[in-house]
Amino acid sequence: MPGLSEFSLIKQYFEKVSTPQSDVLLGIGDDCAIVQADINQQIAISVDTLVEGIHFLPNADPESLGHKSLAVSLSDLAAMGATPTWFTLALTLPEIKESWLAGFAKGLATLAKQHQIALIGGDTTRGPLSITIQVNGFVKTEQALRRNGACPGDDIYVSGTLGDAGAGLKLKQNQLNVQQGKQQQEVFLQQRLDKPTPKIELGRALRGIANSAIDISDGLVADLSHILEKSQVGADIELEALPISSALMDIVSKEQAEQLALYGGDDYELCFTVPPEKQDALKKIKGNYTKIGTTTNEPRKVVFYRDGQQAELIGKGYEHFSIED
Amino acid sequence: MPGLSEFSLIKQYFEKVSTPQSDVLLGIGDDCAIVQADINQQIAISVDTLVEGIHFLPNADPESLGHKSLAVSLSDLAAMGATPTWFTLALTLPEIKESWLAGFAKGLATLAKQHQIALIGGDTTRGPLSITIQVNGFVKTEQALRRNGACPGDDIYVSGTLGDAGAGLKLKQNQLNVQQGKQQQEVFLQQRLDKPTPKIELGRALRGIANSAIDISDGLVADLSHILEKSQVGADIELEALPISSALMDIVSKEQAEQLALYGGDDYELCFTVPPEKQDALKKIKGNYTKIGTTTNEPRKVVFYRDGQQAELIGKGYEHFSIED
Repeated sequence: MPGLSEFSLIKQYFEKVSTPQSDVLLGIGDDCAIVQADINQQIAISVDTLVEGIHFLPNADPESLGHKSLAVSLSDLAAMGATPTWFTLALTLPEIKESWLAGFAKGLATLAKQHQIALIGGDTTRGPLSITIQVNGFVKTEQALRRNGACPGDDIYVSGTLGDAGAGLKLKQNQLNVQQGKQQQEVFLQQRLDKPTPKIELGRALRGIANSAIDISDGLVADLSHILEKSQVGADIELEALPISSALMDIVSKEQAEQLALYGGDDYELCFTVPPEKQDALKKIKGNYTKIGTTTNEPRKVVFYRDGQQAELIGKGYEHFSIED
Repeated sequence: MPGLSEFSLIKQYFEKVSTPQSDVLLGIGDDCAIVQADINQQIAISVDTLVEGIHFLPNADPESLGHKSLAVSLSDLAAMGATPTWFTLALTLPEIKESWLAGFAKGLATLAKQHQIALIGGDTTRGPLSITIQVNGFVKTEQALRRNGACPGDDIYVSGTLGDAGAGLKLKQNQLNVQQGKQQQEVFLQQRLDKPTPKIELGRALRGIANSAIDISDGLVADLSHILEKSQVGADIELEALPISSALMDIVSKEQAEQLALYGGDDYELCFTVPPEKQDALKKIKGNYTKIGTTTNEPRKVVFYRDGQQAELIGKGYEHFSIED
């Protein structure tokens, strides 16, 4: 066990992340944190673990890691239309390294500040590097966006662009041959992997408009399949409609871009369905989203189209090693 | 990433732990769990990580581990006087082994059922074995037992007996020479280590009576020091008053027993202070607790007494590698 100086060191870094909040009655420093909920709201809870070598590469930049650890949990709240409010951090570290802690806490604090959420408690233990963050948020009673509300004939949308993070990972692993002079595009794609932006504002705006939503962490096909499963609908997907960034188009072939958009993980965009009667309301929402298809009455069946013609299903999504989805 | 069969396997085991509860509106199976809080109560939140090789020995019995992982977090709620309500599980596993999962889920489910709490969500990832559990509980507004309420002249109490779990660990590590015919005592001490009982009922009963409380996870001296620090008081401790089990007395010398009671970890008993005017109310509480000393007006100073005479401070507690206390 470390001595007092090391213990104080950890405390010092994470106290900075604990911005005062009126609903946090007792933060770090007792057996439990004490918070006050709101009677008109329900609490949305999401927990995610990132393990070195599985979810991030060894020697990952600590600041990016601090950002991403929080971002992936916030992304789950975004998919429910919830407003994040507080979070806990369970951090397992092989050693106490001041520069690592400073970077990690900075990444965490910057994103936490953006969303005005407080770190209310946690646990730090010695062991192989892993980070578990649990985020709580509020969502007005019965307004949460769930996975089971889609009906046949809804339009299917995704936010942002798809496949960027998947390409970012391939770049990090030297699995892409990139021409000279594409540094800017490479930086963009790696940033999309390292510093995803949880779509909190869009998720909130979609309450009462979308009838189902999920965040895309394991690739569009894998995550859309959860909506199809829970809602008992199918999907017709127009491949030409998939939103691809110009950076990705500059780096890989059109076919590779499509594969990454369908099966690449870590995008943390939202996929959601909107019924016909809510299309006008959707148009009023500012934000970047694209219609990619429609739901059908064939449960769980996904059919791809290219230029109006049915296209072969290419590749396959992977099964996520998780109990939560 | 594992295939569907493995994924279903994990789901199957943990769905058993998710008993239906009226305040859990949406459990495992979406981006977030959705729960309803009570306006008259505040929410107490505690998170703990157990890492193989640090908090438990490799090849630990999975059922005991399931129990203990939940028990240590429940113990934090007990120390606040909170009533547990729901929890999440972040489980990192090196491999999916059906017998391990069955045992772990059984230990978890049995304790969860005793306290009528539901598993509402989690995350399962591949990696070195580690378990992070976050438990939420309710506590009536302003009634939480905190660490900062002790005043000079309060009586200091502990629940149960101390040092048993510390001896249990030494037994597992073959660090104690035990005479023949002491198997029953050995089993008792190892059970105290493997299957601690969180003192939820006692914690709840102490609301409005104790003015500070903490659970003893790192040894009496280390944990009491947090109360002394937060309350800015000192403590006179009567060594003869330390509650020692007959099993422990049968296995080790009186001196060893005292050392284990003062500095051994993992007991998960409560240490609390009661002001003079609440002593009569305390007497009405059923439960096993012992007065071990009084608080003084010398901040953070601990003085030990034996038979009324000041005794040398023996050994030293360790600094807990944690940001939460």
